Amino acid sequence: MENTTIWLDKQDNRKVCVIDQRYLPHKFCTFEITCVAEAATAIRDMVVRGAPLIGVTAAYGMYFATLEANADSCEQDLQTAADTLAKTRPTAVNLKWAIHEQLSAISEVEDLESKRQVALRNAQKIANDDTAACKKIGEHGVELIREISAKKSGPVNILTHCNAGWLACINWGTATSPIYHAFLENIPIHVWVDETRPRNQGANLTAWEMQQRGVPHTVIVDNTGGHLMQHGLVDIVITGADRVTRGGDAANKIGTYLKALAAKDNDIPFYIALPTSTIDWQIEDGVKEIPIEERNQDEVKYIQGLCDGEIKKVLLTPPESPAKNYGFDVTPARLITGFITEEGIHDKICQLQKQENN
Amino acid sequence: MENTTIWLDKQDNRKVCVIDQRYLPHKFCTFEITCVAEAATAIRDMVVRGAPLIGVTAAYGMYFATLEANADSCEQDLQTAADTLAKTRPTAVNLKWAIHEQLSAISEVEDLESKRQVALRNAQKIANDDTAACKKIGEHGVELIREISAKKSGPVNILTHCNAGWLACINWGTATSPIYHAFLENIPIHVWVDETRPRNQGANLTAWEMQQRGVPHTVIVDNTGGHLMQHGLVDIVITGADRVTRGGDAANKIGTYLKALAAKDNDIPFYIALPTSTIDWQIEDGVKEIPIEERNQDEVKYIQGLCDGEIKKVLLTPPESPAKNYGFDVTPARLITGFITEEGIHDKICQLQKQENN
Repeated sequence: MENTTIWLDKQDNRKVCVIDQRYLPHKFCTFEITCVAEAATAIRDMVVRGAPLIGVTAAYGMYFATLEANADSCEQDLQTAADTLAKTRPTAVNLKWAIHEQLSAISEVEDLESKRQVALRNAQKIANDDTAACKKIGEHGVELIREISAKKSGPVNILTHCNAGWLACINWGTATSPIYHAFLENIPIHVWVDETRPRNQGANLTAWEMQQRGVPHTVIVDNTGGHLMQHGLVDIVITGADRVTRGGDAANKIGTYLKALAAKDNDIPFYIALPTSTIDWQIEDGVKEIPIEERNQDEVKYIQGLCDGEIKKVLLTPPESPAKNYGFDVTPARLITGFITEEGIHDKICQLQKQENN
Repeated sequence: MENTTIWLDKQDNRKVCVIDQRYLPHKFCTFEITCVAEAATAIRDMVVRGAPLIGVTAAYGMYFATLEANADSCEQDLQTAADTLAKTRPTAVNLKWAIHEQLSAISEVEDLESKRQVALRNAQKIANDDTAACKKIGEHGVELIREISAKKSGPVNILTHCNAGWLACINWGTATSPIYHAFLENIPIHVWVDETRPRNQGANLTAWEMQQRGVPHTVIVDNTGGHLMQHGLVDIVITGADRVTRGGDAANKIGTYLKALAAKDNDIPFYIALPTSTIDWQIEDGVKEIPIEERNQDEVKYIQGLCDGEIKKVLLTPPESPAKNYGFDVTPARLITGFITEEGIHDKICQLQKQENN
């Protein structure tokens, strides 16, 4: 897979480029980041989104922080930049993890020039590690799809929510990596793409990814998954996650919990695909402890689409009606069949912790 | 409540007017029906929607059938009209029920002029009976809200899906009737309005109804209900239904099943409000036996809203991506706390059958 969502400019290593995901699938364009403020904007305004890509963007943000820092107030300057970046989105654990990784790596060298080199190298390493982890997730996850395919005729129907695709990462994606691996192995598959209101990352991004690669897929409204599952039209659900607790509760895009309930009710395997960096070992109970981002109500009241060749926003509600916009929900561990990580497939997160402690 | 969705023209009793629901909340306009074909169009194109209103529109359609029928081929002409009307929407039981009621009433008189009078009178009676049933549903259902209110401080949070409001009926609505009754009694309430993709009847119609009456409400995307329930922000769910089996399985707008699962998972009462005419005594298992309407994929791929003062449609997906559009799903009886009908509140549909048999 030759896709990438974020790259250092070949001519100018003080410039990072990202795919501007706000206009897909209608328009493909890029966005340039040359300072901490622009990195923060890219995350806050969802030019980039998806936990792993947010993490890498923040890591590059910390590289820009070393470029902007003064030698005499270096530590203070870096901390201010770290705080700015950490505040952009509250739910994704990779954001804080990547910032912490950078602060820790940067602190290991003394002079500012070395700090800059370390910060750049480390941002690139985080990106490369993510790509490697996503590839591994696919290599493990494809086994599940292969097993289902061996037992049925016709394509394996996979339902996914939101976009945990390569656009959310650097390459391969998390939830989509097993899908792409199955597709490359010529296992017959078909993907149900939840449109994923309010920001429609499914209809905008996952559908675009599938369409670009030629993976058979069908877009559905978020209300449809339960009906499909009742009628045997879904073989497996795979989604990503923005944060998973040590107890195995998974915060992901709002609506994931409803699909997990339906999967449980219809005995359909429900998997979360994630790099282990998405695990928050500090907390146990996701419903109680994971802060859920509330975003602007206009994301519910208005929607963006293509009209007469132009990208336009239309109002969907009476103008006076208020709306609420929670970005995520938490799927309790009891509803999750297993976790597909770069380490393998595990029923419970604590099995991974044990591995780490070995 | 002085609202009404369908009325005979005061000057011309060969003309029926309805609110054209395709342009709300952005534009209020009416649609005239003067023949069977226009009645069928109004139902098929969703100028009118909602099981009870579809029934009444079909009943007036049968009145137009008597106006159009020839004396020598009357029976054949009426049957042709009945078939045309019955084919417009497959899921709502009221449609076939109303047509059957009309055919039966019309057959009781001999000459064509009498048939016309009977058909008109009977259509008006079906409309009046529906209004009376909806009022009764509210009088019974408000008890549930009153009880919750007595046990908590602050407003009773009611979640509803789609529009089972007065716009779906003639007046009062089914799911909204307890809400309006509570509001008129000054019980503090707040309504979570599911936008209800793909046609957004929640955001378009329920929000408009609430806004017109001044009932406190908030529009949410369909993905949000589970999260709200996990956090104690929903006290009761009330939806309508398009068909309920004698076993108590309820076909309603796609996505209802997902909300019922979440309500069960969080011990929140989940009620279906319906006139008993919505019960299909012929079938037991709703998931297996209720045909689910599949509508045009463009309802998923495009959405209508207001842009620069005009109603416009925007494309939401890559143009090449296919979409599927199932109109309804079936909520199994085991997930339903009870049924609010004009007869009272019952845990099971069979309790109503027993009453009927008494």
